[in-house]
Formats: sequence, C-alpha cells, structure tokens
Amino acid sequence: MELEFLGTGAGSPAKQRNVTSIALKLLAERNEVWLFDVGEATQHQILQTTIRPRKITKIFITHLHGDHLFGLPGLLSSRSFQGGDEPLTIYGPEGVQDFVRTALRVSETRLSYPLSFVTVQPGTILDDQTFTVVADLLDHRIKSYGYRIVEKPHPGVLLVDKLQADHIPAGPIYAKLKAGEKVILSDGRQIDGHNYITEAQPGRIVTILGDTRQTASIMALAQDADVLVHESTFGKNEAKLAKQYYHSTNIQAAKLAQKANVQQLLLTHISARYVGRKIYELIQDAQSAFANTRVVSDFDIIDIPFKKRTAHEKISSIKES
Amino acid sequence: MELEFLGTGAGSPAKQRNVTSIALKLLAERNEVWLFDVGEATQHQILQTTIRPRKITKIFITHLHGDHLFGLPGLLSSRSFQGGDEPLTIYGPEGVQDFVRTALRVSETRLSYPLSFVTVQPGTILDDQTFTVVADLLDHRIKSYGYRIVEKPHPGVLLVDKLQADHIPAGPIYAKLKAGEKVILSDGRQIDGHNYITEAQPGRIVTILGDTRQTASIMALAQDADVLVHESTFGKNEAKLAKQYYHSTNIQAAKLAQKANVQQLLLTHISARYVGRKIYELIQDAQSAFANTRVVSDFDIIDIPFKKRTAHEKISSIKES
Repeated sequence: MELEFLGTGAGSPAKQRNVTSIALKLLAERNEVWLFDVGEATQHQILQTTIRPRKITKIFITHLHGDHLFGLPGLLSSRSFQGGDEPLTIYGPEGVQDFVRTALRVSETRLSYPLSFVTVQPGTILDDQTFTVVADLLDHRIKSYGYRIVEKPHPGVLLVDKLQADHIPAGPIYAKLKAGEKVILSDGRQIDGHNYITEAQPGRIVTILGDTRQTASIMALAQDADVLVHESTFGKNEAKLAKQYYHSTNIQAAKLAQKANVQQLLLTHISARYVGRKIYELIQDAQSAFANTRVVSDFDIIDIPFKKRTAHEKISSIKES
Repeated sequence: MELEFLGTGAGSPAKQRNVTSIALKLLAERNEVWLFDVGEATQHQILQTTIRPRKITKIFITHLHGDHLFGLPGLLSSRSFQGGDEPLTIYGPEGVQDFVRTALRVSETRLSYPLSFVTVQPGTILDDQTFTVVADLLDHRIKSYGYRIVEKPHPGVLLVDKLQADHIPAGPIYAKLKAGEKVILSDGRQIDGHNYITEAQPGRIVTILGDTRQTASIMALAQDADVLVHESTFGKNEAKLAKQYYHSTNIQAAKLAQKANVQQLLLTHISARYVGRKIYELIQDAQSAFANTRVVSDFDIIDIPFKKRTAHEKISSIKES
C-alpha cells in the first residue's frame, strides 16, 4: 500500500507542482489503483510513473473545483484508448457525472469499459472484503468531502515452526488450527489453534481530505489514521486568510494530526508562493506542532507499513489467545 | 506574426508531444494571441513559453475530439485567476459552449472577463480592420473545420527621402500624399501621392486545418497561403488506414500544398508511433512531394514573413502607381 502524489499544488498548475491528484496504490492488496481527485494533466503526470491507467478502478473526487476535476475526461478517454476494459467507478459530489457525461457526449467519446457513478453522501460509501471507505462533509466554499479508507484486518499467520517443534504432524488439521479451532491429535493431546497463530494484523487507515477549513468532522475521519493527507494552502501566520478562503494552515493541520493520534501527516495543496526558504519554514513550523509531518512534492511515493508492534506485544498476543 | 506549436501529437498525450494546440501570435499586429485548439494541458505548455494567457483574445476550435478540446476549462479558469479582464471569444462547432458552460457551472467558476461563443458555420466568421477569418467544413469522423486567416494589406509607406530630394516641403500635405491624393504646391507644381508611396504590402495568409481526410474544401482554404498547417496522422503507405480513420497522410498533405501553391507546409498531429528513424522518413517522404515541408515539434516557433518581392518588383510598383 503506497500513496503516490501526482499533483501537490493549489489552484493553478505551476512549473514545480501540478494541480491535485493522489494515487492510492493497492497493487499487493487488490491489484488496483485508486485515484483521489484528477486535476488537469493528471494523465500526463501518470506518463512519468509506473501506474497503468487500466489498473485504476475507482476514482474519488473530493470536490468539484477545476484544479481537482478537469483532468477527468482526458484520463477516462486515454484509459479507453489504451485498451482498458475493467469497469471504473467514480465517487464524488453531485455534478461530477454531469461534467463527465457532457465531455464524453460532445467529444463523441465511446469508452471501452463500463463507467458508473456514485453520488457521495456522508457515511459508508464502499464496503467490501478488503476495504471500507467512509466519507464526510468538510467546510469549503463548495461541497467538499474527506475520505477515510480503512483496510480490513489481515487474518493471523499459522506458526508452522512452533507446530513442528511441538511434534504436531502436518496435514488437514493445520487448516483447522489456522482457523482457530481446537483439534484432538491421535496421541490424545488437545491442541488449541489460537496458540499457533499470530494475532490478526489490524488493517491500515488512510485519510484523504479535500480542501477545507478546520471543522469538527475532520477528527472522526482522521482518528488513529496511519496517514493523514491534509491541505496546507496557507502558512503559520495566515489563519485569518485561510478562514476567509475556506482553507487551512500548516499549523492547523499539524495540531489536528496530534489530537487525532495519526501516525504521519502529509501536507499537500501547496501554493506556488511557497518555494525555497518559505517551503522550509512551512515544514519546520508544522513539525513544531506535529513531528512526523512531511510536505509532499509531485511524484513522492509514501509507503504505508503496518503498525509496528514490539516483540513483547507480539509474544503476549500469542500467549493471550 | 508567428506560429508557436504548443502540442503536436495525435490522440493521447505522449512524453514527446502533447495533444493539439497552436498559438498564432499577433503581438506586433494587434497585441493579441489567438489559439487554435486547446488539448488537455495546453495551459501547462504555455507555462514553458512567453505567452501570457491574458493576451489570448480568441480561441478557435477545429473539432470537438477530446485531444483538441479538454484543456479549455482549465485555460479559461487560469486566465481569470491570473487577472485577465479582456473579453475572450471562442469560435467552434456546436457543443463547445455546452462543454465549457457545464465545466464552469459544476466547478462554480466565475470568470473575471466576459466570455462569448460563436458557433462556426462555413463562410466568413470574422472580419475586422486587420484580419478576415474564413471557415469551411473538412471531412472527419465528427464535424471538423479548417480556418483561413487572411491579414488585410498593409498600406504603402511614404517615401520621405524622395519627397525631400524633390524639394517638396514637409507639412500637412505629407498626410494627403500618403493617402494617395494629388496636391498643388505653392510653386505651382502638381504632385501625385502615388509617386511617393510604396505599394501596399499584401497581407499574409495562414491556413490551419482540423483533423481531416482529403476533401475538396481544403484547396480553397489553402490556396496561396504563406503557411499551411496540415495534419499528418499517417505515413507514406498508409493512405487506406488514413481514409478508414478519417485522417491524412504526409504525402497527401504535401501534394495538396504543391497544388494549392502554398509557401510552406507544416505537418502536425503526429502519432506517437513516429519517433527516431520513422520521423525522419515522414519528413523525407513529404519533402519529395513538396520541398518546403517541416514536421513540427512542441514549442517550435515559426516566423511568418511578408512575401519577399524582388528589387524589380518593388521599383516597378512605385513607378506604376
């Protein structure tokens, strides 16, 4: 599970940063890539990466401002042109379907794959075997959503070495033990599977917010997230401007990350005003409020590891079970 | 008067070539830039040039395929964001207004300048003091237009040296002579202005075609043009494919240029299949049919000079007048 930032700028494209798009790469988890926002020239940015458009199966739009939206028709067309045939679903506020359907209609584009739309409402918008996605409204000039992507827990792993050390013979009973069942061996011993499997690995949580002022809904979206992607359109002493323009400062994002107990904060939606020394200050100021903060750049790839547990935690979890 | 190619590729953006957009730079002539087609990321390409979006006053769309159209909402928004306040007019087939208005509506974009649309029909679509633009239908899968941009003649220049050599005193009569009038001097001499002005300089002609098969209308659009911009989606031995996909080959374009007596042929809309040796062949093959042919690349700038006249032509034109 990785995040790849395809555009980290605010408002208009600049030489250093394209407008917003974020890829959540779930290749190991489900051989898919999910996109969050599709600013203009997202498909151009993708050309510089290893992402293949046909692998993109879900697109989540946070809000309909052009710098998060206008790359959608081109990306959809090129995915078709390149032979993509897997269905694609677009989640977003009302209006995204109107925009896309109009673009495809006037350009007489016929896609090679089924395209469907889900109009997002606050609540659970997706729930399948491996992931749940929850959406909630933020506070922006237009309707803007934050998405909380929750991976389902990974089942525990069977400790084969321990089974062999205890002279428990291999065979169909291993499957039963892995499922946590109790079995009786031919030598009369009763074996509890829970003693031979590692604890289920909790899934990871990624929270990606659209443009927003600070507002109460962010806390529940971000709580305990492994990664929080938060906009940072303004800097330390610009809280008033941020509020006026329905955006956030780096400090507001960092304080929120601290309170919400997130593991890592990634700041994006960076104004072209922040370059050189000013970008360094943006980072430093945020880190003073929340140490594990990073200001991302276009093409940054962030690996999202499972939460590390101490050796003690691992051993005790096996003993307790 | 210059052409600057902002995108010279076909269908989808590629690393080497962006999708179609051409700037006709009329800075000396009217302090304006006109765009022909606006593929996705045209505004990104403009960032790499000296073109300022606020100088773009007219946009002509040849046809509504996405690779000629999808950059329009982003460019319009950024022109506004950067403080453009001069009116902008978009000329194009029916549907362009629907696309643009929908994009602006769903993104709640309010432009800082008046935007108007002209639905193109075959015939003269623009005629003012310095330019005439004529449109005609081509032959493509969807309605596609070619545009013939005709500069009005530049009036003759007053030959002040010659006036002084003939002892004709400076004063308000110089304006009359420049206008070609006859005046009587205080010494009784009758002077004809025509003998003291250079011939009017014929205006230049630029023809820019949308995607098209070969069809009769191209000849009238291209006749005697200083520059003909013609698509070249296919190569020498692909006339059948070209017809099937409603496109042209390099050879077809070159033969047309020859017949239409154009000065220079610029081939664009180059497929990503043409790189390295194949692009060299594309050029060579076209030049064998029409020598003054060039396959353009992104960011190529082509100066369009006035037609050169020989010294004899210049002198005789003065004598005759």
